[in-house]
Amino acid sequence: MDSRKVPQNIGIVALDFYFPQQYVNQTELEKYDKAQAGKYTIGLGQTNMAFVGDREDIYSICLTVLKNLLEKFNINPADVGRLEVGTETILDKAKSVKTVLMDLFKECGNTNIDGVDTINACYGGTNALFNAVQWIESSYWDGRYAIVIAGDIAIYAEGPARPTGGVGACALLIGPNAPIVMDLGIRGTHMENVYDFYKPNLDSEYPIVDGKLSADCYLRAVDRCYAAYAEKFEKKLGRKMSIEAVDYVIFHAPYNKLVQKSIARLSYNDMLRDPESSKFAPISKFKDLGLGEKSYSNADLEKALGEFSKPAYNAKVAPTTHLPKNLGNSYCGALYAGLISLIAEVEDGLIGKRVLMFSYGSGLAASMFSFVVTSSVKNIANKVDLKGRLARRIKVAPEQYIQTLQVREKMHHNLKDYTPTEPLNLPPGTYYLTKIDAKTRRSYARTPSATQARL
Amino acid sequence: MDSRKVPQNIGIVALDFYFPQQYVNQTELEKYDKAQAGKYTIGLGQTNMAFVGDREDIYSICLTVLKNLLEKFNINPADVGRLEVGTETILDKAKSVKTVLMDLFKECGNTNIDGVDTINACYGGTNALFNAVQWIESSYWDGRYAIVIAGDIAIYAEGPARPTGGVGACALLIGPNAPIVMDLGIRGTHMENVYDFYKPNLDSEYPIVDGKLSADCYLRAVDRCYAAYAEKFEKKLGRKMSIEAVDYVIFHAPYNKLVQKSIARLSYNDMLRDPESSKFAPISKFKDLGLGEKSYSNADLEKALGEFSKPAYNAKVAPTTHLPKNLGNSYCGALYAGLISLIAEVEDGLIGKRVLMFSYGSGLAASMFSFVVTSSVKNIANKVDLKGRLARRIKVAPEQYIQTLQVREKMHHNLKDYTPTEPLNLPPGTYYLTKIDAKTRRSYARTPSATQARL
Repeated sequence: MDSRKVPQNIGIVALDFYFPQQYVNQTELEKYDKAQAGKYTIGLGQTNMAFVGDREDIYSICLTVLKNLLEKFNINPADVGRLEVGTETILDKAKSVKTVLMDLFKECGNTNIDGVDTINACYGGTNALFNAVQWIESSYWDGRYAIVIAGDIAIYAEGPARPTGGVGACALLIGPNAPIVMDLGIRGTHMENVYDFYKPNLDSEYPIVDGKLSADCYLRAVDRCYAAYAEKFEKKLGRKMSIEAVDYVIFHAPYNKLVQKSIARLSYNDMLRDPESSKFAPISKFKDLGLGEKSYSNADLEKALGEFSKPAYNAKVAPTTHLPKNLGNSYCGALYAGLISLIAEVEDGLIGKRVLMFSYGSGLAASMFSFVVTSSVKNIANKVDLKGRLARRIKVAPEQYIQTLQVREKMHHNLKDYTPTEPLNLPPGTYYLTKIDAKTRRSYARTPSATQARL
Repeated sequence: MDSRKVPQNIGIVALDFYFPQQYVNQTELEKYDKAQAGKYTIGLGQTNMAFVGDREDIYSICLTVLKNLLEKFNINPADVGRLEVGTETILDKAKSVKTVLMDLFKECGNTNIDGVDTINACYGGTNALFNAVQWIESSYWDGRYAIVIAGDIAIYAEGPARPTGGVGACALLIGPNAPIVMDLGIRGTHMENVYDFYKPNLDSEYPIVDGKLSADCYLRAVDRCYAAYAEKFEKKLGRKMSIEAVDYVIFHAPYNKLVQKSIARLSYNDMLRDPESSKFAPISKFKDLGLGEKSYSNADLEKALGEFSKPAYNAKVAPTTHLPKNLGNSYCGALYAGLISLIAEVEDGLIGKRVLMFSYGSGLAASMFSFVVTSSVKNIANKVDLKGRLARRIKVAPEQYIQTLQVREKMHHNLKDYTPTEPLNLPPGTYYLTKIDAKTRRSYARTPSATQARL
C-alpha cells in the first residue's frame, strides 16, 4: 500500500436546478382525465407537473442549468476538470450530451475535461456523482472542480402513468471544502436484471412501465441498499445505523406516495433489525413476514407502517418533497430536486445534520449514501431561489398540456429540418432550440439571464 | 489534506476479447462492391471484417465476454465490486447493458456491484476504465475487483463506410497487483462539440458519418491529448516525453490507415516540440505549418511524415494491429483489441515496457494514457488464445454478408415477438438470443464452453 494525500470535505460546493416555466395542476388533470378526485393528488401524492414543448430538449435544459450554475456562483469554466451527465433522455445513440455542453467551455479554451454520459434510467446522475467524488479522491485529480448534470424530460403515453411525468435538471458543483460533505466510503448498492420500466422503443419518448412491479423492485432495492449501507456505516462510524442516526432522508421520487412507503419501509427494516425493542411495539407483530415478496403488498402491514412512520415522514422526509411534488418526476434529477427542496426549506438549520439519500433507476440500479452539512448553505439557497422561481411559474390548462405533448411528438419524429413553433415562454437565462438542420444538428439561443438583465 | 493508504500496481489483472465466428474478406468485398482493387486493403489498411446476424446482439456479446473472463481466470463472481459497460450499441434508452449482465451474478447472490453504462461513441470503454481505476483509488473500494466491458456492433448503410464495420467486445479485470499497471495520475483529455459521426436516427443501427471531418477531428484530438499527456508525464516522471519514451503505441482503430497517420502525427508533434534536433531533419522544413487545420491535409507533409515515421510504426505500432485489421472496428472495443494483439504478439517481451494508449470517440471525447507491464502476461496470452481462435473463424462470401445484414435490419425493426432464424454458427461458450417476447424482453442461451467441453 502507498500513502497518499487526499483533500478534505469532498462534496457539493454549490448547485442549481432548472425547471420549466409552465406546469399543469394535478387536480385539474384529474378532472380533465375524468379520474376519481384525489387519484393523482392523494393516490400519487402529487400537486403540479412541469412540462416542455418543442422549444426545449435534453441538450437545452442541460445547457441552461450548467450555464446558470457557472454564472450564479462565479465559476471560471477553466477551473472545471470533469463534467459528466446522467440522463435517460436519449437523442443520439453515440454522441453524448456532455459533448454538446463543451460549447460553454469554448470561449476559455478549456477542452481538457474528463467524463462523458452515464446511463441507467433515473440512476445516471447518482453514478455520475460517485464518479466525480472518486475522481477527486484519485491520483488523476488536478485541483479543479467536477460538475455533475442530472436531468430528464419524463413524459408518458396516454394512460395511468401520464400524471407521473415531469421535467428538470440539476447541476452539482463537486469539490473539496464543500459545505455538503459526502460520507466517504459509506455506500450500499443493489443491482438486478428486471424489466420494470424500460424504453426499448427507441423511436418514441414513452417508456414501457409495469407500475406494480416497479414499486416492488423499488422497495426491495430500499431493503438491500439499506442493509449494505448500514454495514458500512456501522463499520466506519462505530455506531448503530437506524433512521434515528440520520436527520433527513431523501428518496428518488417518481411520485410522493412511493416516498411515503419508503420511509415506512426503512422503519420496518429498523424493526426487523431490532424486533425486541419496545419502540417498535406497534409494528413488531409483523416481524415474521420478513423482507419477502409478500411484505410489499400486505395491506395490514402497509397501514400499520404508514401510521408508525408518520412522525419520521413529517420530520425527516416532508422537508425534501416540495419541488418533486410540484415538478413531477425529473428522473435523474428527482433525487436532487429533493436535496434542493431541503436546502430551501431548512437553510442553515441543516448545519451539523446528516442526510441519507436513496437513488433508484429501473432495470435496476440503486444506491444508498449520505452527506453531512458542515457549514452554511444560505448562499446556495439564496442563489437557487427555489420558492421565488416556483411562484413565478405559469399554470396552463390540461387541454394546452395535451396539445403541447402532440407538438412534442411531431417534433420527435421530425429528425431534420425542423423549426420550433411554440412561443418563447421561458425564464431568464434559458437555452432554447432554434433549429434542427438537414443533418439533424441542433442549434440553440439563450434568453437574457437574470444577471444580464440586472446590468 | 488527509493521508490515506492506496493499493499498489492498479491496472489490468486479466482480460478477454470476444469476436464472432464469421467474417468477410476485404479483398473479396472490394470485388463484390466493384471498388478499385486495394481500396479497402491498402486505402483503409484492413484485411477482414467480422459481423453478426440475428443470433447475437450487444447483450449477448457482453454476456459472452464477461462469462468467459470469469471462467478462464477462475474469478468468483462474489469477488466483483464494480462492473461498468462502455458501448454505443443502444437497444434501450433507459435500461443499461450492465443490468442484463447482473444475471451472471445471480447464482452467487452478489448484487452489491457499483457502476452502470457509460456512453460517448467509441470512448465509453475508456471512460469506464478510468472510473474503475479511480474507484480502486477511492475510499469506496472494498478490496474487490472491477470489471470493464467495452464492445460494439458496428455496421453501416451501403456506401463507402460499410467496409469499416466490425464487431467485438473486451472484458478487462481491474485490480491491484496487476501485471499491466496504469501510469497513475498521467492522462491527457480533449473534448469538443462536433458532428463527425453520430447516431440521431434512433430507429436504425447505422450512423451518420462525415469521414473527412472525423479523420481531421481524430488527428486534432491526437495533438491536444498528446500535449496534455506530455505535460503530466514530464511533471510526474521528471523526463522528456516523446515517442522514444514509450515502447508501444495503441491507437483507437476505425481502420488501419488512420492508425498509420496517427503515429506519423505524433512524430510531427515531437518535431514541433524540438524543431532544431537533427533527428527531425527530414521533416523539420514543415515546422511553420504548425498544428493548424492545413496540416491535416497537406499531401507533402503526409508523404514525408509517412516515410519518416515508418520505423516507429513498424516497431511500436504494427504489433498492436493484428486483431483490429482482422476484425474491423469494434468501436468501444477497438483500442483494447489493439492491447490484446500486442499481448499475443510480444508476450513476456512486454515486461518492463511502457504502452501509450489513445482513445477516441466521435462527437468528440478523447484521452491519452499509458500502462507499464511489470510482470508476466503469458498466462493472459495463453488463455485468450488469440491466434488459435482467429484461425478457427469461418470466412463467408460477400453475398452472404449482405444477406445477413438484411436479416439484421429486419430483426432491428421487430422489437417484439421475434425468434432468430439464422443457424447457430457460434464458438464455444457463446451466448445467443433465443427469443424477443411480446414485451420486448430478450432471452439467451449459451453454447457449451471450451472448459465445459473438456470436462
